[in-house]
Amino acid sequence: MSQSLRITVWNEGVHESTKDPAGMAAYYPDGIHGAIAAGIGGQLPDATVRTALLSDPEHGLGEAVLAETDVLLWWGHKAHRQVDDDVVDRVQRHVLGGMGLLVLHSGHFSKIFTRLLGTTCSLSWRNAAEREVLWTVAPTHPIAEGVPNPLVIPEQETYGEFFDIPTPDELVFISSFTGGEVFRSGVTFHRGQGRIFYFSPGDERYPVYNQPEIHRILANGIRWAAQPDLPRAAPTVSNPPRNWFDPE
Amino acid sequence: MSQSLRITVWNEGVHESTKDPAGMAAYYPDGIHGAIAAGIGGQLPDATVRTALLSDPEHGLGEAVLAETDVLLWWGHKAHRQVDDDVVDRVQRHVLGGMGLLVLHSGHFSKIFTRLLGTTCSLSWRNAAEREVLWTVAPTHPIAEGVPNPLVIPEQETYGEFFDIPTPDELVFISSFTGGEVFRSGVTFHRGQGRIFYFSPGDERYPVYNQPEIHRILANGIRWAAQPDLPRAAPTVSNPPRNWFDPE
Amino acid sequence: MSQSLRITVWNEGVHESTKDPAGMAAYYPDGIHGAIAAGIGGQLPDATVRTALLSDPEHGLGEAVLAETDVLLWWGHKAHRQVDDDVVDRVQRHVLGGMGLLVLHSGHFSKIFTRLLGTTCSLSWRNAAEREVLWTVAPTHPIAEGVPNPLVIPEQETYGEFFDIPTPDELVFISSFTGGEVFRSGVTFHRGQGRIFYFSPGDERYPVYNQPEIHRILANGIRWAAQPDLPRAAPTVSNPPRNWFDPE
Amino acid sequence: MSQSLRITVWNEGVHESTKDPAGMAAYYPDGIHGAIAAGIGGQLPDATVRTALLSDPEHGLGEAVLAETDVLLWWGHKAHRQVDDDVVDRVQRHVLGGMGLLVLHSGHFSKIFTRLLGTTCSLSWRNAAEREVLWTVAPTHPIAEGVPNPLVIPEQETYGEFFDIPTPDELVFISSFTGGEVFRSGVTFHRGQGRIFYFSPGDERYPVYNQPEIHRILANGIRWAAQPDLPRAAPTVSNPPRNWFDPE
Repeated sequence: MSQSLRITVWNEGVHESTKDPAGMAAYYPDGIHGAIAAGIGGQLPDATVRTALLSDPEHGLGEAVLAETDVLLWWGHKAHRQVDDDVVDRVQRHVLGGMGLLVLHSGHFSKIFTRLLGTTCSLSWRNAAEREVLWTVAPTHPIAEGVPNPLVIPEQETYGEFFDIPTPDELVFISSFTGGEVFRSGVTFHRGQGRIFYFSPGDERYPVYNQPEIHRILANGIRWAAQPDLPRAAPTVSNPPRNWFDPE
Repeated sequence: MSQSLRITVWNEGVHESTKDPAGMAAYYPDGIHGAIAAGIGGQLPDATVRTALLSDPEHGLGEAVLAETDVLLWWGHKAHRQVDDDVVDRVQRHVLGGMGLLVLHSGHFSKIFTRLLGTTCSLSWRNAAEREVLWTVAPTHPIAEGVPNPLVIPEQETYGEFFDIPTPDELVFISSFTGGEVFRSGVTFHRGQGRIFYFSPGDERYPVYNQPEIHRILANGIRWAAQPDLPRAAPTVSNPPRNWFDPE
Repeated sequence: MSQSLRITVWNEGVHESTKDPAGMAAYYPDGIHGAIAAGIGGQLPDATVRTALLSDPEHGLGEAVLAETDVLLWWGHKAHRQVDDDVVDRVQRHVLGGMGLLVLHSGHFSKIFTRLLGTTCSLSWRNAAEREVLWTVAPTHPIAEGVPNPLVIPEQETYGEFFDIPTPDELVFISSFTGGEVFRSGVTFHRGQGRIFYFSPGDERYPVYNQPEIHRILANGIRWAAQPDLPRAAPTVSNPPRNWFDPE
Repeated sequence: MSQSLRITVWNEGVHESTKDPAGMAAYYPDGIHGAIAAGIGGQLPDATVRTALLSDPEHGLGEAVLAETDVLLWWGHKAHRQVDDDVVDRVQRHVLGGMGLLVLHSGHFSKIFTRLLGTTCSLSWRNAAEREVLWTVAPTHPIAEGVPNPLVIPEQETYGEFFDIPTPDELVFISSFTGGEVFRSGVTFHRGQGRIFYFSPGDERYPVYNQPEIHRILANGIRWAAQPDLPRAAPTVSNPPRNWFDPE
């Protein structure tokens, strides 16, 4: 089934320009989007994976691209405000119409995520290269399939509660950090016809997106969120044609 | 506890101008907001109830009014698009900060409701003066306290599924209609620090808001949504001050 | 994937003995279990479908049978108390270990359903050959795939709220009846590693299990509940082997 | 409102007999039940708090006691199997009828908790005197009111996921431990008319029940679970008396 999946990896692509030879440029030579796309490609060999950037026309997310996207991945951090509201409207419409959406790490503050959830999506954080231990709390959820429990991420930005989101439809992962914080690090939401998976590990300062287990989780999330056979249509207002108890 | 509750009933106030002597003007001589305010006042004698209209400056929902409102009720139908986005921003901020919100009937399509839920909030409908039978599916929920089960509403606009909302935190009432439709007619959501209750019965063409049982449900919803002792503050982003396992 | 599914249809088989030529014997000549098995077989041609009866040794649900069952369907009504507690223990263990379970109609009062849910699972009912209209409230749920919305069942026993179950993990269908009742007629639960789908339409007095749309829903439920690749094991108590922050 | 609350603290009372002068006897001289009762009494001065033990006739939980109990607290560890099934039946009936239930720490394996939830309720554990940090993930939940966030428990038995429970109705607290484990340490469930709060901190080896913040959480849980004005009755099966659309 995964053969035909069409995936778009979106990245704001701002950190990439820093060219820090000891940092991001070293472990993400093709950018965060490049690392994610390569990791997904290894897990879903028959999928079509494209990337899109903030600097592309329409941020690379024109109507035609979204119409041909089964699942969109979103990574952003510093440039949330530069994302055009018309593009956000368009992405929201496609998600409500059935396109899957994976929101990654600092994407919690993106316009599209806060738009779909209605809350601030704020959280606590600290950047201290702490060890994150990610635990599965929904062992039979398809997103957890084949994922080590726990999964240890040697160094990562610390995210902590309170994470200001609506109660998730499903809580898949909870993480702890060296400092003692906990975080609902893998959560799902249904909005309209669309499925949304938020996954917090992954940052521009740590090579998390090079970890094979992370690729596995992203691929699982894509399979879970994809509905390739569903006609892409936002729920529409309809006037029921008849009274079900009237004589016909 | 209800003594100090401060309630604001908002109405777009457009249908009121039709002056149909056989219709709305007959059973809602003081407008929909007037009927609702009077009904609530009878149930919560010590509460302070004020009304606000679309035509008021800032739609009657300036910062000072919201800061002194424990629970806001919202009725709108024809003029959703005329509601100023800045006012919607302000109301959303107050809800996330802890103000209660009751969204009524055709308010399902209001900017504030769709903004807080992230979906289209569309539904099916038919205007045929059908009988609505409202059933309690959460018997010990405070909003259902003292409400007859079922509650019969002799004539009402028919609302039907699919109601495009996120899965509610609590499902309190389900209604059926003469025509056979069903509708999740009483649902709650938590967003940020705020509590939201959507309640579908009530229309400009039927005197539903004159029914004492409806007053009871609205008063129950207000009590449930009110958090008068909570400091009104939207969740903020904070940086945890210390590592909980470091020596102090 | 459905090729290898192994399905067991359990029926208490008591109504079958009445031999009412104008009733059940006419439309269910092979018993309720026979009608269900035939209907499922038509939808899942490569599945293996067997039946089991209360009167079989161990009610037809010995360890070997359950170990080779991906999904168990349960129909009972008059003889719940005759089901042996040891068999109930065994079925519960298999469900918690990952076997799917579909509980049908009056099976709401079965020992296995009340055991897994912890509540009385009581409801209101009336037998008046009323028309049931079943509405989908989770349009993209796999159990609703290909199901007409609404689905009309010409005659059926009336089930009404309050249905004393825990809040379902997912609410898929809500029904209304001629008399005005509503009922959460399709609900899912996760318990341990197992998935449970309760579906209320279907009775010994009405030929509901001969309706193709009902076969479709049962087949969808089976596909949703089946986890053929999951090792069948109840969650076990484990002592984590190491402190994740200790040096190894 | 708390004046009239009637609380029963149940303890199996087995560890108490060890008389370890350096351990439990030192910090719980009146037993675990004594410490809990005293702590609650300090928070709810007008409540009536009684204790009951496994060794009492009917384990101290006769019909009259339960009928006069608004909220029951349950602590057990080594003697779960010695609890009489008839008493478990009785307690379950009262919970479904509206009695509140707080299940504490190793009570996760009690007959009454597994009976009400339907799952194994197993978890991972390690006894290593680790520091537990308890975080609030539902800041406006009444059980979290006035509770420091985070709350640090200097030494406690480590509980870890996977905790084999149904998805809770509300997730209030998540804990981390020195070793990196996470645990859903404060969760609520509604079953029938009753409200259940499971709270994991508290063990026979650590003086957790002497911490004032723990007393606060227990008192909050009691207030939340108590429904003193609710007639104590399990949901009953009823036959609706009339067809709501028939002429009367």
